Amino acid sequence: MIKLNENFDKLKKNYLFAEIAKRTEEYKAQNPNADVIKLGIGDVTLPLCSSVLDAMHEAVNEMGETATFRGYGPYEGYEFLRTAISESYLRYGIDIQPDEIYVSDGAKSDTANILEIFQTGGNVLIPNPTYPVYVDSSIIAGRNICYIDANESNNFLPLPDYSVKPSIIYLCSPNNPTGAVYNKKQLKEWVDYALENQSIILFDAAYEAFIEDPDLPHSIFEIEGSKECAIEICSFSKGAGFTGVRCGYVAIPNELKVDGKSVGEMWLRRQSIKFNGTSYITQKGAAAALSKEGMEQARKNINYYKENAKMLSETLKGLNIWHIGGKNSPYIWLKCPNNMDSWEFFDILLTKSNIVGTPGSGFGTNGEGFFRLSSFGKKEDVEKATQRIKKLQF
Amino acid sequence: MIKLNENFDKLKKNYLFAEIAKRTEEYKAQNPNADVIKLGIGDVTLPLCSSVLDAMHEAVNEMGETATFRGYGPYEGYEFLRTAISESYLRYGIDIQPDEIYVSDGAKSDTANILEIFQTGGNVLIPNPTYPVYVDSSIIAGRNICYIDANESNNFLPLPDYSVKPSIIYLCSPNNPTGAVYNKKQLKEWVDYALENQSIILFDAAYEAFIEDPDLPHSIFEIEGSKECAIEICSFSKGAGFTGVRCGYVAIPNELKVDGKSVGEMWLRRQSIKFNGTSYITQKGAAAALSKEGMEQARKNINYYKENAKMLSETLKGLNIWHIGGKNSPYIWLKCPNNMDSWEFFDILLTKSNIVGTPGSGFGTNGEGFFRLSSFGKKEDVEKATQRIKKLQF
Repeated sequence: MIKLNENFDKLKKNYLFAEIAKRTEEYKAQNPNADVIKLGIGDVTLPLCSSVLDAMHEAVNEMGETATFRGYGPYEGYEFLRTAISESYLRYGIDIQPDEIYVSDGAKSDTANILEIFQTGGNVLIPNPTYPVYVDSSIIAGRNICYIDANESNNFLPLPDYSVKPSIIYLCSPNNPTGAVYNKKQLKEWVDYALENQSIILFDAAYEAFIEDPDLPHSIFEIEGSKECAIEICSFSKGAGFTGVRCGYVAIPNELKVDGKSVGEMWLRRQSIKFNGTSYITQKGAAAALSKEGMEQARKNINYYKENAKMLSETLKGLNIWHIGGKNSPYIWLKCPNNMDSWEFFDILLTKSNIVGTPGSGFGTNGEGFFRLSSFGKKEDVEKATQRIKKLQF
Repeated sequence: MIKLNENFDKLKKNYLFAEIAKRTEEYKAQNPNADVIKLGIGDVTLPLCSSVLDAMHEAVNEMGETATFRGYGPYEGYEFLRTAISESYLRYGIDIQPDEIYVSDGAKSDTANILEIFQTGGNVLIPNPTYPVYVDSSIIAGRNICYIDANESNNFLPLPDYSVKPSIIYLCSPNNPTGAVYNKKQLKEWVDYALENQSIILFDAAYEAFIEDPDLPHSIFEIEGSKECAIEICSFSKGAGFTGVRCGYVAIPNELKVDGKSVGEMWLRRQSIKFNGTSYITQKGAAAALSKEGMEQARKNINYYKENAKMLSETLKGLNIWHIGGKNSPYIWLKCPNNMDSWEFFDILLTKSNIVGTPGSGFGTNGEGFFRLSSFGKKEDVEKATQRIKKLQF
C-alpha cells in the first residue's frame, strides 16, 4: 500500500511570498492609482547580454543541422563549459580543474540534491535566518537540523560553535537574505571547524559576483584546507541573469574524500542516475557569459544593480536605520525602525510609501524585526523609492 | 562526522556502455579501415524541426529585451506549455487539464525524483529487464525492489502477480529496452491490480510517439480507473528530438490522492523545494513541437526512424530470428541466434558485420541471450547494416 513521505508534514507552510502578494493585491485594489514599487523580489530584471544571446542563437542553429546536432550531453556538462569555469576560477587565484566541475540546471537543484549522496544520520547545521531551500530539502529527506544564530550581535555572520558536531554545514556568502559577507579569517574558522569535526561545508556562492571589496573571498577555495572539506555551489543566475535560463554548477575538489571515496565520483554517479545533463543551448550561453566580452557585459548589469543597492543603503544611513548588505551584495537587510516587527514594517512601507519589500521573519525566527530590500529593480523605481523612504516619519 | 550514503554501495556497477565503447574502440584500433555502424544508441540523430528552432530563436530574442525578459518561471512550467500539453492529450480522447501537468527538464529526472514524495517502506515493482534508472534511483533511496519477469513466454509483457503487493509499480510502454507495447486489456489488468493493492503506477510513456497500431494505448489514462492510481511520465526527447534540449513532464490527475492528500500538490511542493523551473527557451520550443506544424514536422522524423526499424525487423524475419519491437517502437529486441549469450552475439556482430548493438544482459538478468538494436541511426547506415546481417551465417 502506497504511503506518502511523511517528512513533508514537517515542512513549515511557507506563506511568505503568497502573503506578500495577497497584502499587495489588497492594497492595490483599495488604491487603484497607487504607484507600487516592488523591491521584494530576488529575481533579476535586466535582459541577457548580447554575447550570451549570440551564443544561444548559434547553438539553436547548430541544433537544426544534422552535422552539428547534439543529443544527450555529458552528465557533468560539456568540456567547453567546464574549461571556461575552471579558467574563471583563476581570477581569484584558485586552481579548480575542469574535472572538478559538475554543470547543472541551477544552484537551487544542486543545493538540495547534493544532500542525497550523504547518509541521513547526523546533523545539518544551518544559519538562522536562511535561504529556505537548505531547511526544506533537509526536512523532506528526514535529516536533523541544528540552527546557528545569525543576529545583530554577530552582524549576521555566525562563527562555529564547537559544542555542536554537524555532518553537513550550509554557508551562504554573500548571504541570502542578509547580504552579509564572510571575510577570509571568518571562513578559515569554519574550514578549521569542519576539518576538526570531519564535516562537509556546502558553500553557496550564488552571489559572489556582487563582491567588490578586494579582500573579501569570492570562493571557499580561497581558504587553506577547504579542498579537504568543502563543496562550492555556483550559479549563472545572478551574475549573468540566468534565472530563466537555468544553469549552475558544483565544484568538488578531487582531494575531497569521505572514507577514502571520492565525493566528486559519488556526485557524478548520482547525477548519472537522476539527471540527464543541461541543455546544450544553455551551456553555450553560459560559456559565452564567461568569455571576456560576456564578463564585461555582465559587469555592467551587476554595477547597475549595485548602484541601486548603494542608493538604498545611503538613504538608510541618512535615516540612521541599522542595516547590512548593499555593498557586496544585491540585498539590504535592515532593522525595522521603532522595534516594529517585520510585518508591521511591511504594512507601513506598503501603505505609506507604496514600496513592497520582504519581511525578514519569513527567513527564520532570527529574521523577526528585520526586513530585506532587493536591488534587482529598475533604477528609476529605486530612485523614487528612496525619495519616499526619506519622507517616512518613524 | 560526515558519512556517504551507503545505498550507493548496493548499486550494480553498470559497465554496459563503457564496455561497449571499450570493445568497439579495441576493434577499431585493430581494424582501422572498418566501417563500424552504431545501432546501439538510444539517442536521436535528426536535427530539431524548423518550428521548434523558430520558437527558440524568438525566445532567445525575448530574453534580450527588458520588456520581454523572463526570470524565474513557475515551478510547474508556463501555462502556455501546460495548455498545449493538455490539448495534445485530446488526440487520444483523454482529459488532462493544464493544472494536472508538471513540466521538467526531462523524463529521466522525473522518473527518479518522483519517488521522493513516497515513503521508502514498501516494495517497488520493476520488470526485468528494464531501463536502469528505475532500479538505481530506488536503490540509492534505500527502497526494496521486487522484480517481475519479462521473458519470451510473455512476449516481454509481464502481467500482475497478485501474490506480490507493491507500493510502487514502474511500467514502460512502448518498452525500453524491449520495444514491447501493452494493449488496453493488459494495462487494465495492471490498473485493476494497482487499485486493489492501493499501489501507484509510474507509467513511462517516453516512446508513445512511435505507436502506430490504432488499438494500442499511448497513455495509461486511456484505461478506466487509471486516474485513481497512475502518474504518467512523458518526454519531448524521442518524439521531438529534445535529448539535448531537456524537457519532459509529469501528468498527475487531480483525482489521485493518498490518504486524502493530493499527489499533485505533493509533487509541486517537492519541485518548489528542489527544482527551479525549466528554461523558458526550452519551454517555448516544446510548445512549438506541439503545434500543428511542429507535430507534422516531428512526424516526418519519427517515420524516418520507423522506416529504419521496419528494415531491421524485416531482415530479422527473413533470417527467422525471434524478435519484438520495431513496429510501435524505435527498438528491436532480438533473441541471439544459436543460444549465444548477449556478449557473444555482440562480438560476432561487431567483428563479422561491423555493427555495434546493445547486449540485453545489460538491462537485467532476463535480458541475457537477447540483444537491442536501435533505429535512431542514419537510413544509409541501417541499409548497409541489413545487408551485412543478411550475409551472416549462424
